[in-house]
Amino acid sequence: MNYKEATTEELLAVLDGLETKLFALGYASNQIGFAGETQDPANAARDRGEASATLHLLSQNILCSDEMYATIMELNERREELPEWRQDQVRVLIRDWEETNVIPAEENADMTRLIVEANDVWHSAKVENDWDSFAPYVDKMVSKLIHFAKLKDPEKDPYDVWLGVYEQGANMEFYDKFFEEIKATIVPLLAKIVQKGNHPDTTCLQGTFDKDIQYKMTREVAEMEGLNMDALVIEQSLHPFTNSTSSNHVFITTSLLENDMASNIYSTLHEGGHAMYEQGINPMFNYTSLRGGTSLGIHESVSRFFENLVGRSREYADTALAVSKKYFPEQFKDTTADEWYLANNVAMPSLIRVEADELTYSLHVIIRYEVERALFAGEITAKDIPSVWAKKYHDYLGVEVPNDTEGCLQDTHWSGGSFGYFPTYALGSAYGAQYIAAMERQGIDTKAAMASGDLTPLSNWLSENIFQYGRSKDPSWLIEHACGEPFSAHYFCDYLTQKFSAIYDL
Amino acid sequence: MNYKEATTEELLAVLDGLETKLFALGYASNQIGFAGETQDPANAARDRGEASATLHLLSQNILCSDEMYATIMELNERREELPEWRQDQVRVLIRDWEETNVIPAEENADMTRLIVEANDVWHSAKVENDWDSFAPYVDKMVSKLIHFAKLKDPEKDPYDVWLGVYEQGANMEFYDKFFEEIKATIVPLLAKIVQKGNHPDTTCLQGTFDKDIQYKMTREVAEMEGLNMDALVIEQSLHPFTNSTSSNHVFITTSLLENDMASNIYSTLHEGGHAMYEQGINPMFNYTSLRGGTSLGIHESVSRFFENLVGRSREYADTALAVSKKYFPEQFKDTTADEWYLANNVAMPSLIRVEADELTYSLHVIIRYEVERALFAGEITAKDIPSVWAKKYHDYLGVEVPNDTEGCLQDTHWSGGSFGYFPTYALGSAYGAQYIAAMERQGIDTKAAMASGDLTPLSNWLSENIFQYGRSKDPSWLIEHACGEPFSAHYFCDYLTQKFSAIYDL
Repeated sequence: MNYKEATTEELLAVLDGLETKLFALGYASNQIGFAGETQDPANAARDRGEASATLHLLSQNILCSDEMYATIMELNERREELPEWRQDQVRVLIRDWEETNVIPAEENADMTRLIVEANDVWHSAKVENDWDSFAPYVDKMVSKLIHFAKLKDPEKDPYDVWLGVYEQGANMEFYDKFFEEIKATIVPLLAKIVQKGNHPDTTCLQGTFDKDIQYKMTREVAEMEGLNMDALVIEQSLHPFTNSTSSNHVFITTSLLENDMASNIYSTLHEGGHAMYEQGINPMFNYTSLRGGTSLGIHESVSRFFENLVGRSREYADTALAVSKKYFPEQFKDTTADEWYLANNVAMPSLIRVEADELTYSLHVIIRYEVERALFAGEITAKDIPSVWAKKYHDYLGVEVPNDTEGCLQDTHWSGGSFGYFPTYALGSAYGAQYIAAMERQGIDTKAAMASGDLTPLSNWLSENIFQYGRSKDPSWLIEHACGEPFSAHYFCDYLTQKFSAIYDL
Repeated sequence: MNYKEATTEELLAVLDGLETKLFALGYASNQIGFAGETQDPANAARDRGEASATLHLLSQNILCSDEMYATIMELNERREELPEWRQDQVRVLIRDWEETNVIPAEENADMTRLIVEANDVWHSAKVENDWDSFAPYVDKMVSKLIHFAKLKDPEKDPYDVWLGVYEQGANMEFYDKFFEEIKATIVPLLAKIVQKGNHPDTTCLQGTFDKDIQYKMTREVAEMEGLNMDALVIEQSLHPFTNSTSSNHVFITTSLLENDMASNIYSTLHEGGHAMYEQGINPMFNYTSLRGGTSLGIHESVSRFFENLVGRSREYADTALAVSKKYFPEQFKDTTADEWYLANNVAMPSLIRVEADELTYSLHVIIRYEVERALFAGEITAKDIPSVWAKKYHDYLGVEVPNDTEGCLQDTHWSGGSFGYFPTYALGSAYGAQYIAAMERQGIDTKAAMASGDLTPLSNWLSENIFQYGRSKDPSWLIEHACGEPFSAHYFCDYLTQKFSAIYDL
């Protein structure tokens, strides 16, 4: 094909053919990955790894093919002729092409294989409190990721490269500033709380909760949140996560704890938020590279919005308590919505990030950020992590780490090769607080919606301002476009101060 | 690459690379197909169809690539240098290449799309007893399959082509002879039974059986049968089936009926037989085209061996009853193994193939064979099927068909584009009876193994003589090699005569 002489229509037809292949291979990888985390038998690991690596390679071959390159470059020349979404598609594909093409396909496939193996080892290591078995994988991955970062951008610090992959535009300078700002709020607030020690009563949440009943409740919580149940799969896994093959086929998982049903509710609201984002992306993008969320920070802004800003509000407490009463009537027969609200908003230093409260959560993130930064800077290696981890938890949160299972083995991310990912969690919370302020300015009574339990006004706003765009717009564009101003952390700081000052009567 | 000048080692490396891609795409398709039948939400159908069709196309592009053709043809020239399994691999790939290459990739992808859609329509049509909604798909598929058959072999009758695809060497002449032979046994036997009317008492099986408990029992039945649980996934679906991505990752499903727990046991033994075959294939074949079973007849020979020849024997009744007592102690507290055996061996004309007894089962198959033969011959079209179906069930089995849900909508096969498949079910039963005779001649006390509940001697024989070979050997080679003689239906006829004459005291 002579690309220069082809009509734009012909070029778009070639592009659609290539995109459909990328869609199909992505569909396969996500389905296989989901089965791997929720269903596969022990012996499947090696073959799943081989299949995943090969599918990844096939996908990369298509993205990096001469045909793709010639097509997107020629279409880019003619961008003035294209509708806006096609311009976005070409821009995103050129970025993907650049990001991927610098890494030789075989090296990328090796990395995929390493990840599958590491994930398997991590699963056992966590159960058996065996950091030593997992540590070599961390070192191998960091070294590979530094190597990849240098291929991507030899001018940049490797950790900055990876921070920017998960959140376009973010780097150490950006996060240092952001973390300083929220630390200046959280540290004194937490100090006052610990000193005062007047924690809410959590007796109402204590008990034993049948897992089968909890699992049924998970479905109702997701439905309550506003998810389209005809486009959703719910399963169980060790660590809850969300994945999707298209806006019509989204997966979430939950991790059921026999002694903590509230954790199931909030984790479902969290993953349900991710899922609502995926379901809300323009279905026209399904077979294109514009499918999926634009960044992890924006993704987390939605999940933590539903988990905390909505889920843990006083207004939504009536709804959360009502569903709890339905499934566990004996347990909650005398509980009031005020009690539920307070019991689910204890701010207390703790060990496990995913179970941390809204106030201390960011400190867990900051610790991971600092560990990763030190690993990438070569100041420490994986064998040092348990002691560094213990020291930081002692210094920042005042807790002693009793074992690695509840310490540096708690998160799945490193086993998946994700370094530079954690900071987006804290960023997401801050984005979310800014959404609420924008909604209010735009005339939405957010408190009334939360109090009614019908979250449609909020999800409509998110759908219109965030979800629909998929990958077609970058985080900073979305924030400015949705909120009418650039990102600012002060909404989040103000929110935390008001909420926890009231709860703790400071 | 110059294939003529390449070393054999270089050619094998190219072949392994291509085979790994075929493996990965097959892994993906099977995983996606399994999720589609057991887990996917309603809205996923269209995207799953698009992804499946595209993966199929990618796979076909690799199989039909110039690189593949040049490699296997050159290796075929050098077959004397190759170890036996490589010779088999090249032979099977050349056959696959020929079978696939005659159908244009786009037409094949259309068929895959049609199948996904038809399967979806069939699911609703069965629930709603709505043959008219499904009928157009049957006509479309038959017409496509006739077209494909003519492309494959213009000399042959199209239905013969498809019979041969599911069982190499089989055709209408072969099946006509086989079905005449077993009809000559079954028809008079059944006539005597119906006339005598002294059916065993089935009271012990009547009751309501909690599905969650049955589902737990499914796992134990599979374990009892001898399956490797570290390489097995068990789920639920509308119609039970088996699939696999490799010998390390095999799926079975069960369809739980609240009023029939025995159906769950025998269906699990059946699917478990398929799964044992898949698990028993030489793991060296996993990433090659030699993975999977060699034919449907051989596959069914194993599944029906475990379901009937073992599962419904008097010897195994003690084991089957023991597991039933464990999960449903109240129901079976007074049941004896004799009662269990007799209750599960009632021979009685009925409507549903998968629930038919061992004796009448082949009549259900013969009806489908005759309907398909008439469709392919153009003697009828899909709109005639309900009346033809009703007439044949009346004539052969003496039952009246009350609706299409329990009639021509009962089986999933046609919705999957499988025509010419059904006859292999009856053939499989006959192969199995011949295995038992061979095992006995080779010194295995099959009755003692069944009575002990430890089926290892039987599965070892099957593993050594059938399973390990995967697709590397054809059915007729396997039968002759395993049994020391060509296929003969008389073992099956003798077995049925002896068993049912004793049960009905004829």
